[in-house]
Amino acid sequence: MARVLRAAGASIAGLFCRLQTPVPKVRTFSTSLPFHQVAGPVWNLERLNHIAVAVPDLEKAKAFYKNVLGAQVGEMVHLPEHGVSVVFVSLRNTKMELLHPLGNDSPIAGFLQKNKAGGIHHICIEVDNINAAMMDLKEKKIRILSKEPKIGAHGKPVIFLHPNDCGGVLVELEEA
Amino acid sequence: MARVLRAAGASIAGLFCRLQTPVPKVRTFSTSLPFHQVAGPVWNLERLNHIAVAVPDLEKAKAFYKNVLGAQVGEMVHLPEHGVSVVFVSLRNTKMELLHPLGNDSPIAGFLQKNKAGGIHHICIEVDNINAAMMDLKEKKIRILSKEPKIGAHGKPVIFLHPNDCGGVLVELEEA
Repeated sequence: MARVLRAAGASIAGLFCRLQTPVPKVRTFSTSLPFHQVAGPVWNLERLNHIAVAVPDLEKAKAFYKNVLGAQVGEMVHLPEHGVSVVFVSLRNTKMELLHPLGNDSPIAGFLQKNKAGGIHHICIEVDNINAAMMDLKEKKIRILSKEPKIGAHGKPVIFLHPNDCGGVLVELEEA
Repeated sequence: MARVLRAAGASIAGLFCRLQTPVPKVRTFSTSLPFHQVAGPVWNLERLNHIAVAVPDLEKAKAFYKNVLGAQVGEMVHLPEHGVSVVFVSLRNTKMELLHPLGNDSPIAGFLQKNKAGGIHHICIEVDNINAAMMDLKEKKIRILSKEPKIGAHGKPVIFLHPNDCGGVLVELEEA
């Protein structure tokens, strides 16, 4: 999440010059390509980092995951720069991120107005190279919600992909 | 997913007799409890098994995860008994389940009518004992969408929890 979520309609100026002729779907370097055919940006999808759930009542949500499901639940953290308060829920192989609006200009306020009971807001998948991913996805006509990677809630560079280009799912990519 | 999803409003008859006095939040057996205080049903939350995404066009969604994100994507499987066609997307630590309605009475048809571009339909978390989980959750007044566990898409017993009792998230529990 981040303020970039409000920029869904923003035009995307190129951050990276086209120094290469992209070859979609070539994901590894190869020395056998003809000289005029250079491998596209190399990046790989890695782990699911988290599922983010927007909740109308953070204490109630925290109690549900801790007391009802018996999950390991962290303390509430306020992230005013992202406009949210966050609680992490640990599962064995990944985590959930419970989000509640913080301040008057939260990027998840609109979502909660439409989904009063709360709901799944986005998923975050790790990548090994966020800049390569961004360059490649732009070539593939996937809209990215910021002109460049931003520093996300975990202190790492992230981008968000337009949900209409991802089957209705807001996808965050985070450099692992 | 399963036809049980249509039974959200069904009354929940007890599958399990109350042989014990439940003690909420006691998750492990203890020999130090007073004789009148017996530990409640013992179960543990395990891995996130999958994120299920309902999609209006399965081939298009499959192409997005395979060709755009470079994920490992399986073949389409038809599950007429569940009213869906499914494609699995492998991530390093979990998987995504792309769902498309199959037949005239699919449990995800209504979701796709409300969310025409598609969207995240439910999450599935593994548990070590589905019957104990069911008994415990009923004690905790969490509505369960079937009277008993059903056999899910992976051939294992599953239950679904009412989204209004889970912060707006449809939660599937699957015995690992």
